[in-house]
Amino acid sequence: MNTTPQTALGPLEAWNRVVIENVRPEIDGGRFPIKRTVAESVLVEADAFTDGHDLVRCELLYRVEGESGWTVAPMASLGNDRYGGSFAVGREGRCFYTVRAALDRFASWARDFEKRAEAAQELAADLEIGAHMLETACRRSNDAALGRAAAALRAGGPGATSAALDPGLAVRMAERADPAEAVVYPRELCVVVERERARFSSWYEMFPRSASPEPGRPGTLADCVKALDYVSSLGFDVLYLPPIHPIGLRFRKGRNNSTRPEPGEPGSPWAIGSEAGGHKAIAPELGSFEDFRRLVARARQLDMEIALDLAFQCSPDHPYVAEHPEWFRHRPDGTIQYAENPPKKYQDIYPFDFESPDWRSLWEELASIVEFWIGHGVKIFRVDNPHTKPFAFWEWLIARIRKRHPDVIFLSEAFTRPKVMYRLAKLGFSQSYAYFAWRNSSWELTEYFRELTQTPIREFFRPNLWPNTPDILTEYLQAGGPAAFAVRLVLAATLGASWGIFGPAFEQAENRPARAGSEEYLESEKYQVRHWDRDRAGSLAEIVARVNRIRRENRALQSDWSLHFHSTDNPALICYSKATENLANIILTVVNVDPKFKHSGWVDLDLNALGLDAEGPFQVHDLLTGARYFWQGPRNYVELDPRVLPAHVFRLRLRTRSERDFDYYA
Amino acid sequence: MNTTPQTALGPLEAWNRVVIENVRPEIDGGRFPIKRTVAESVLVEADAFTDGHDLVRCELLYRVEGESGWTVAPMASLGNDRYGGSFAVGREGRCFYTVRAALDRFASWARDFEKRAEAAQELAADLEIGAHMLETACRRSNDAALGRAAAALRAGGPGATSAALDPGLAVRMAERADPAEAVVYPRELCVVVERERARFSSWYEMFPRSASPEPGRPGTLADCVKALDYVSSLGFDVLYLPPIHPIGLRFRKGRNNSTRPEPGEPGSPWAIGSEAGGHKAIAPELGSFEDFRRLVARARQLDMEIALDLAFQCSPDHPYVAEHPEWFRHRPDGTIQYAENPPKKYQDIYPFDFESPDWRSLWEELASIVEFWIGHGVKIFRVDNPHTKPFAFWEWLIARIRKRHPDVIFLSEAFTRPKVMYRLAKLGFSQSYAYFAWRNSSWELTEYFRELTQTPIREFFRPNLWPNTPDILTEYLQAGGPAAFAVRLVLAATLGASWGIFGPAFEQAENRPARAGSEEYLESEKYQVRHWDRDRAGSLAEIVARVNRIRRENRALQSDWSLHFHSTDNPALICYSKATENLANIILTVVNVDPKFKHSGWVDLDLNALGLDAEGPFQVHDLLTGARYFWQGPRNYVELDPRVLPAHVFRLRLRTRSERDFDYYA
Repeated sequence: MNTTPQTALGPLEAWNRVVIENVRPEIDGGRFPIKRTVAESVLVEADAFTDGHDLVRCELLYRVEGESGWTVAPMASLGNDRYGGSFAVGREGRCFYTVRAALDRFASWARDFEKRAEAAQELAADLEIGAHMLETACRRSNDAALGRAAAALRAGGPGATSAALDPGLAVRMAERADPAEAVVYPRELCVVVERERARFSSWYEMFPRSASPEPGRPGTLADCVKALDYVSSLGFDVLYLPPIHPIGLRFRKGRNNSTRPEPGEPGSPWAIGSEAGGHKAIAPELGSFEDFRRLVARARQLDMEIALDLAFQCSPDHPYVAEHPEWFRHRPDGTIQYAENPPKKYQDIYPFDFESPDWRSLWEELASIVEFWIGHGVKIFRVDNPHTKPFAFWEWLIARIRKRHPDVIFLSEAFTRPKVMYRLAKLGFSQSYAYFAWRNSSWELTEYFRELTQTPIREFFRPNLWPNTPDILTEYLQAGGPAAFAVRLVLAATLGASWGIFGPAFEQAENRPARAGSEEYLESEKYQVRHWDRDRAGSLAEIVARVNRIRRENRALQSDWSLHFHSTDNPALICYSKATENLANIILTVVNVDPKFKHSGWVDLDLNALGLDAEGPFQVHDLLTGARYFWQGPRNYVELDPRVLPAHVFRLRLRTRSERDFDYYA
Repeated sequence: MNTTPQTALGPLEAWNRVVIENVRPEIDGGRFPIKRTVAESVLVEADAFTDGHDLVRCELLYRVEGESGWTVAPMASLGNDRYGGSFAVGREGRCFYTVRAALDRFASWARDFEKRAEAAQELAADLEIGAHMLETACRRSNDAALGRAAAALRAGGPGATSAALDPGLAVRMAERADPAEAVVYPRELCVVVERERARFSSWYEMFPRSASPEPGRPGTLADCVKALDYVSSLGFDVLYLPPIHPIGLRFRKGRNNSTRPEPGEPGSPWAIGSEAGGHKAIAPELGSFEDFRRLVARARQLDMEIALDLAFQCSPDHPYVAEHPEWFRHRPDGTIQYAENPPKKYQDIYPFDFESPDWRSLWEELASIVEFWIGHGVKIFRVDNPHTKPFAFWEWLIARIRKRHPDVIFLSEAFTRPKVMYRLAKLGFSQSYAYFAWRNSSWELTEYFRELTQTPIREFFRPNLWPNTPDILTEYLQAGGPAAFAVRLVLAATLGASWGIFGPAFEQAENRPARAGSEEYLESEKYQVRHWDRDRAGSLAEIVARVNRIRRENRALQSDWSLHFHSTDNPALICYSKATENLANIILTVVNVDPKFKHSGWVDLDLNALGLDAEGPFQVHDLLTGARYFWQGPRNYVELDPRVLPAHVFRLRLRTRSERDFDYYA
């Protein structure tokens, strides 16, 4: 960037009287793309102005990657020299947009001409000026209508005045304007368009080896095929499996993360690689590629997908260790550097050395792993610990994969520092875990979700809300029992267009920690086979299923941007709404975030945000219970007992506005 | 900008594990410089982070324009991956700054080593890794101390451990780090450094022809020389004169903007140019260049300066019109296009056509006008209607002038749309008129001055606050009488480090409008000679002088950034403080903004912002009246009668903090 203003005079073309600035959305000066999903739109705003009093015409330029020319759409004045316009994004891939502005000399002339005509001033000279502009444009554009208009102006009299004041003429002149006279914003901004599931998805994480219906026999991929019916009945559309690759033997971890395993213990699936293969192999105890093919096929039948885990690290037994020792860091004694968080040592894990002199072949190989599983029907990847690999690697990898496979979705596991988490999202991850798991009070939730949904962060960061994961059994869940699980699942599923649970531990409300003060599970499935009775009494499966059905049936919950918080007079009660753009579908959720006690209070609705009249009554229909209540005005009473149900998920049904009448008795 | 991520693998140098983002201050992605005055400092902040757990070292790089190398200063961690550092700017001119960051591999190693040592782990291999890093750095930097440290680490035993843990060693290694391993923020950001008067100035505008002490005789530059003593006694340091050039005859305006002047009427000074000359001439009725030389010299003796008006436009009689008709726009009938705001016509004014095919010679000529007056000792210019000339012209002109004369100050008259006003400031104007004149209520003032002083706008926009100008006699002043003038002068002089008045109309509380609803003065000096009796009873001169003395004696009032508003329980009372950085000088102002009635109420001070203890008593010393009050805690009572004085301008005097004891009895 040259910040030195020119003190010599360059060509006239080097300056333009029109300025464009403050273009939004724009991430880090255009360094990163914004994100959308198919059929969404991009609302672009910009300041545009000039010296003096001339009118400015502002236009939005956009194109799909690969197209040569821009599509041009007008931007409307929003007042205070700001303009806005929008375009819809079509298929998956990348689009570009920018802003163009120009002096609208003819419209400026017409505006002044009208004032002169109203003041009954002498108009001959001004008619000649207008005619000259029309003639010039006629010659350039070969639009004979402009030539006829010029002649009408020159003819004088009332006909000339009315021809000059024809608003259609100014529009026509704007359409015929010389693009060379316009200034174009110097940056082409990018939008990455993904399929809808990048925005709206419901995930279920499950260890295949825990999927066996028979106690005592470890689960397999074949069991997962059967389990798909259960997961589908819960309403999820993504089944995410922790790594399914062969597990290393050396330094294998035992039950409860023991470093002294008993013979026959299965080890951690994240210790990837054994003599049976590495990241492109399936652990023999889980089954074959044919089993995997069946799993993918059955998921497709159920309108679901299989997501795999990308854990780019090796056990000491991974074939890469012998074949490519140059991809690992070596200690002075010649041994390979295992993972550490001093003084802790993880001798079952060898990280890759992304700065290895042979980094290119390593990066290519890792990309080939993703391609390999895409070849086996996987289009969604959950990425393990992306923050321990270079940012440049992810930007390269995701761009490279998306170039051939724009429908591939990446979920970033990054519970690390906020700026690192956001950077990973900017680099291309479709979705990211967020800090939801640790935001429990209504104040924390409000602050955090305003940051995620009402600031420019929403342009690049799509949160995926997980109440639990194999690594995270929060203190809230440990202490709060099944009611706490119900609170968290309603919050996750209604605050987030994407959410997920680690089951069956979640729906069984498994809440025993490894030890006091730990977020690890006791008898964690990371280190041992567990058996779950899916039909156990007290399972939260039914409420999970109900919430997922509500999500599918209500488009309001399928996007995050409309999230709006409403006041309550009891801090244990949080209230928020989501709505479709046309307000045809409005979901109002009220949650008692205290899993121990019944709470009641008054919610104070922002009726304007809900498109409601100040006085008109409306119906709130609780989609969790089927109950319907008549509310009126902003203040309404709620009472929620966590021993029954800690939440209302209301659909607003109106009778005051005719266009939404149909909905009232639905 | 290439927003396409590389999908092919480039050189290793093309990526770096460290990211720098969110660098502040930065205006429009580095497109425009920030502003400082001599001896101020620039506090720079940036996010810097890496993948994984390595420590990052962040440094501030800065240099004066023309210097080849960067000066490097460490940036301290502010938490959450943010770093801060600062540098002081020296002489007038331009400086550059940017941010550099690198992995601090040795410090990361030392941090881990310490944890391993505390856990009594085997350290031999880690000592060898550290020794190897030290050796490599020793070879590269020829610092033998690093070689000795390597040997100490290799010697093993307690000596090796303590050598490894020596914090001085990590610092030394950081100082010897290879700059090639660092990442440098891709933009060099610029700061324009001006002299102090660009930040802190007190302006007095006066028509020379109204400066005569004898009624009936028009004033001259020689009268201005004498008037300087008066203006200086009021405490002003800039005397700004409307255009002093010959005034055109054709279409000359008469008294009260009449288009039918009587013979002998003097015309508007902004209708520049007659057969006596143009922008490089002095109107014969005002005097000679020798008179002007005496004026400049006398001002210098009084530590004042003369500011001239740059009004780039011509009367029909300007020599340019005949010599350079190509610099003007022509109408179809061959006449030159006069200024218009349809249906209004200003036939006494010909605007330049900045887009003329011969624009280069026009721009050069206009620059030569500025150079001409610089040659006659003028270093401050007030620019008339900059928003009617192209932005590119101002950016070019100011850069060009500053290159040879970095001490030249430009004040932008731009009461136009806010975005245009800010753009002109970004382009290089030192100071700008602002919307102060129309912000009267405490709420309006608070909102507006928070925008000006507590947002990034302050980095490029320096407001100059004028309660009145020859064009602006606000309704507030018209209706409020002398008390209103007192309110506005205290507000302007304490809210703004730069302020100005158009006198003697201001201190004489002249408040007769041209007509109801107009902001123009009756008998405006723009169109006629006025005579003022400076010694008239009831003049506000004494309070003006007192306020300007307070400004000179209290550094807190000489900058805008510390402005802090404090609550009051009466909307007619506004309360705010300004303080020096070390809090040695704190001015607390309370103003009754209702010029009609006495108001009383409680101010609720933000004691923390004032560096005061919650309980400790303190003294407030009213510098306007000399009265002293003892206050305690945040809530204190005030009562202000506009018929006496509408404001307190308190200096806080403390006895609770020893370092400020000295001040208490001052």
